[in-house]
Amino acid sequence: MRVSETLIPTLREDPGEAETVSHRYMLRAGMIRKVAAGIYTYLPLGLRVLRKIEKIVREEMNRAGAQEVLMPVASPAELWRETGRWDFYGKELLRFKDRHERDFCLGPTHEEVITDLFRREVRSYRQMPLNFYQIQTKFRDEIRPRFGLMRGREFIMKDAYSFDRDEAGARLSYQKMYDAYNRIFARCGLTFRPVEADTGLIGGTSSHEFMVLAETGEETIVYSEEGTYAANVERAEVLPPDASELPAPRPLTAVSTPGRRTVEEVTKFLKIAPTQLVKTLLYTTGKDTVAVLVRGDHDVNEIKVKHLLGATDVELVVPERVPELTGAPVGYAGPVGLKNIRVLADWAVKAMANFVVGANKADTHFVDANWARDFTVDHFADLRNAQAGDPSPRQDGTLKTAKGIEVGHVFMLGTKYSQAMKATFLDAQGQEQLAVMGCYGIGVSRVAAASVEQNHDAKGIKWPIPIAPFHVTLLPLSQSEPVTQLASSLYRSMQESGIEVLWDDRDERAGVKFNDADLIGAPFHLVIGEKGLAQGQVELKVRQTGDTKKIAPDQALPTLTTLIQAAS
Amino acid sequence: MRVSETLIPTLREDPGEAETVSHRYMLRAGMIRKVAAGIYTYLPLGLRVLRKIEKIVREEMNRAGAQEVLMPVASPAELWRETGRWDFYGKELLRFKDRHERDFCLGPTHEEVITDLFRREVRSYRQMPLNFYQIQTKFRDEIRPRFGLMRGREFIMKDAYSFDRDEAGARLSYQKMYDAYNRIFARCGLTFRPVEADTGLIGGTSSHEFMVLAETGEETIVYSEEGTYAANVERAEVLPPDASELPAPRPLTAVSTPGRRTVEEVTKFLKIAPTQLVKTLLYTTGKDTVAVLVRGDHDVNEIKVKHLLGATDVELVVPERVPELTGAPVGYAGPVGLKNIRVLADWAVKAMANFVVGANKADTHFVDANWARDFTVDHFADLRNAQAGDPSPRQDGTLKTAKGIEVGHVFMLGTKYSQAMKATFLDAQGQEQLAVMGCYGIGVSRVAAASVEQNHDAKGIKWPIPIAPFHVTLLPLSQSEPVTQLASSLYRSMQESGIEVLWDDRDERAGVKFNDADLIGAPFHLVIGEKGLAQGQVELKVRQTGDTKKIAPDQALPTLTTLIQAAS
Repeated sequence: MRVSETLIPTLREDPGEAETVSHRYMLRAGMIRKVAAGIYTYLPLGLRVLRKIEKIVREEMNRAGAQEVLMPVASPAELWRETGRWDFYGKELLRFKDRHERDFCLGPTHEEVITDLFRREVRSYRQMPLNFYQIQTKFRDEIRPRFGLMRGREFIMKDAYSFDRDEAGARLSYQKMYDAYNRIFARCGLTFRPVEADTGLIGGTSSHEFMVLAETGEETIVYSEEGTYAANVERAEVLPPDASELPAPRPLTAVSTPGRRTVEEVTKFLKIAPTQLVKTLLYTTGKDTVAVLVRGDHDVNEIKVKHLLGATDVELVVPERVPELTGAPVGYAGPVGLKNIRVLADWAVKAMANFVVGANKADTHFVDANWARDFTVDHFADLRNAQAGDPSPRQDGTLKTAKGIEVGHVFMLGTKYSQAMKATFLDAQGQEQLAVMGCYGIGVSRVAAASVEQNHDAKGIKWPIPIAPFHVTLLPLSQSEPVTQLASSLYRSMQESGIEVLWDDRDERAGVKFNDADLIGAPFHLVIGEKGLAQGQVELKVRQTGDTKKIAPDQALPTLTTLIQAAS
Repeated sequence: MRVSETLIPTLREDPGEAETVSHRYMLRAGMIRKVAAGIYTYLPLGLRVLRKIEKIVREEMNRAGAQEVLMPVASPAELWRETGRWDFYGKELLRFKDRHERDFCLGPTHEEVITDLFRREVRSYRQMPLNFYQIQTKFRDEIRPRFGLMRGREFIMKDAYSFDRDEAGARLSYQKMYDAYNRIFARCGLTFRPVEADTGLIGGTSSHEFMVLAETGEETIVYSEEGTYAANVERAEVLPPDASELPAPRPLTAVSTPGRRTVEEVTKFLKIAPTQLVKTLLYTTGKDTVAVLVRGDHDVNEIKVKHLLGATDVELVVPERVPELTGAPVGYAGPVGLKNIRVLADWAVKAMANFVVGANKADTHFVDANWARDFTVDHFADLRNAQAGDPSPRQDGTLKTAKGIEVGHVFMLGTKYSQAMKATFLDAQGQEQLAVMGCYGIGVSRVAAASVEQNHDAKGIKWPIPIAPFHVTLLPLSQSEPVTQLASSLYRSMQESGIEVLWDDRDERAGVKFNDADLIGAPFHLVIGEKGLAQGQVELKVRQTGDTKKIAPDQALPTLTTLIQAAS
């Protein structure tokens, strides 16, 4: 493709709207443009990246025996009512009425539609197992869409749904997808890690997320470097500590802590370590309020609290309500003397004695508090986030943490949807059975963004070869006859050899061309300068490493062919 | 692909919901399934057809120099308000609000979004001409979605938009698309005809539709067999007849026509030809009511009436209002003595004298009516549909009619959108100019349906080779070792040669397999029977012609390769 014939509106300045690297660079490289909050047009270069990812996804899904279908963007409410998700899904589900006042939503996921297809069309165990996938535009009405393609409202997703005869079959289907996902992200040239994950709004019995590792990632994962354990911190289990032998309790004492509210302020003031303090956080499920106790250096894991309470949602109590619940201003809540509120505590608290807690009184804390003696814990449980240094719950080493971007998610659904929608088949004995399901998503557009988060430098993007919009940017630095002639002949021969080449045929200064080439980030840049050419040389630059090499013009094609083939 | 591993839920019976051949057969062949009115899931075979059409479209659009982009399904109201189409578009535009109460629509077409992109990103004539296309899901909230993919609400469309410096450039871009469309539909293996067309809701100065010819088509086209003229009947001009010498008027006489209302009833009763009667039809624009006069054997062309009145919509007056407007029951309206209603008449009426009209009185007509003498015609114009036998408006022969299905539409938009949205560029003199636009659509999913309407028989579909879901259905008629072995080896060798083959590996009766193969409609069927094989023969059937031929098994691959290559 010639730059002069392609819309690649590169920007020199960082656009104000962009908060993350991928958002910034994809805008600056002229790959995407915003149409509305979280809604983008893909320009030619951006679309080329998407199509490459789609192709890899499609090949691996087909290889794993999944069948491609295409379900509609508009999804009728009736199906969503059957599973209860019409009410349950919340405002992310964009609902609308058609001209006949019938309710629809823009599909954020397609369990209902595919399960409806299954129950209508599949009768017998002989037709199973089945796995259907699609690559389709999805819509989630995020409250705060941001980060460009990373958290858009309209996005492109590959979703797949498997239907098996039994649990064992479903596990096999799940494993096939797990393996396919590993191949897909590896083929995309990404550094990633599958981790155990929470099942969220989709539900089901277990799940793994595929995380592209990047410092800018929104998700935190924990993993054992020595072992195999890896999980999203939302999900990661924490083993209970040994609480068998506790020091003898000292008497409970109130101390004045004027204006000290945070863990940092209180521990500094009292000259103790955060491990000697217990934080008290008040949560509401909408109906119910609970106090959650964790050690001062730990963070509450709200998903664990939610699961323990069997609630669909938990939120911190708004600050305005704290005085009425505790009798004290924010910052002084504690379990001692707390009325009509259930107290939940993380396991770590069980191993503590003589700790500091808020006294439910302004500017006051208790020291030498002890559970059981000073207050009742209704329930000890794993309620905190795992953190670096914790032992792995698989007992295979010590945990480390990393940041990641979720690009894929596989779920064992069990019979959640087949039960709600009566999706049955007849087994070998002629008995009606519920299909055992799995579902499997890849955020195709998010993979593109995650790749940029992982592969970039101060000048721009460094696309991995398999998903780069072009393999090579061809950069003739003058409009002179020999330079143009060589550029033109290399362009043709590269195209004929299946090398995807972007020819910067503009009459622009060398600096402009170099900057755009670095920004756009094709893996290889072939520079034709007048001086070099006079000496029988062109320059090959590898974007990933920045290495450059002078080569003879007739070596360009074989050299590039070798480099590109090595990556596929 | 193996039938046993693919969801192809064929149906023996015609589904009740299907009104047209393509709808019926695509349901019966297990290619699509309804999710809601006008909204379908594409099953594996249906999706394969779509993807083949998309591939041809993409190749030809790229060849014509268009750039692929992808615009969002959700379109913000602001842009539609700028062109006035937010209000103008009517209920086909599906509107919704997001969680922040901002207005959006599901894009039925993308002029606004692409023109917005142009005005933001393109500055100079040096960057032009430009042509952007996308293949994307579109939504039109049809009042009566029907005929399966033919008139769905959610459908897949290729839309393209060109931006030129001037009219001459725009005409060139239009011609390129016109040529590309001819190549696309020819490559799809369809019999089609480009025709002049009305511009409808898109607007602009001129347009052509691409019509797939099929008896079941909803559209009527007229064309000159001797010449080149061809047009949608909505649009086809009718030349004014010679009205220079009219017979002498006879006195106007009222006659009793008890209970005779229709042209047929009145002409039969009065023993006259329909060419001796003038029909009077009352139309309303919402604000205004007019009477339209056409000869008894002619049909009013409502689009011509609409254009003449400069109205956005015209409709026949509801029967209940006729008595109040004419003083008579329905069936007796006429121009004589009609009060406060403008009278428009088709040119053909100008060439008539002593004709029959309704008398605006129950059970009464006038005979020997004459315009000018008995009533005033406010405007003579071309207001009727062209019909077979009319002279071609290009004076290149006599018109014939045919039925067609619109699968593509190219529009010269001029500056309609660039003006409304201030989409300008700087010309060579540094002057700001409006971009001159064209837009170009292909109903990708409708092409699939139109192909079925054109290519089928009583047993099922006959896909043209280039868009068939598979080239070959492989039909082993028994599960015996030699038959299975040959099927398996042919399956492998066909796949290796790039022949797309559907292997009916089910343990089913021959009749079931034959029926499904005919229904699904792959162009070639390769039948392996036990008896034939014992004699060293397999049977090759050509679905289009029904011809069968016995060949040696080792001739199957070269024969099929030749047949398939001949079509591409």
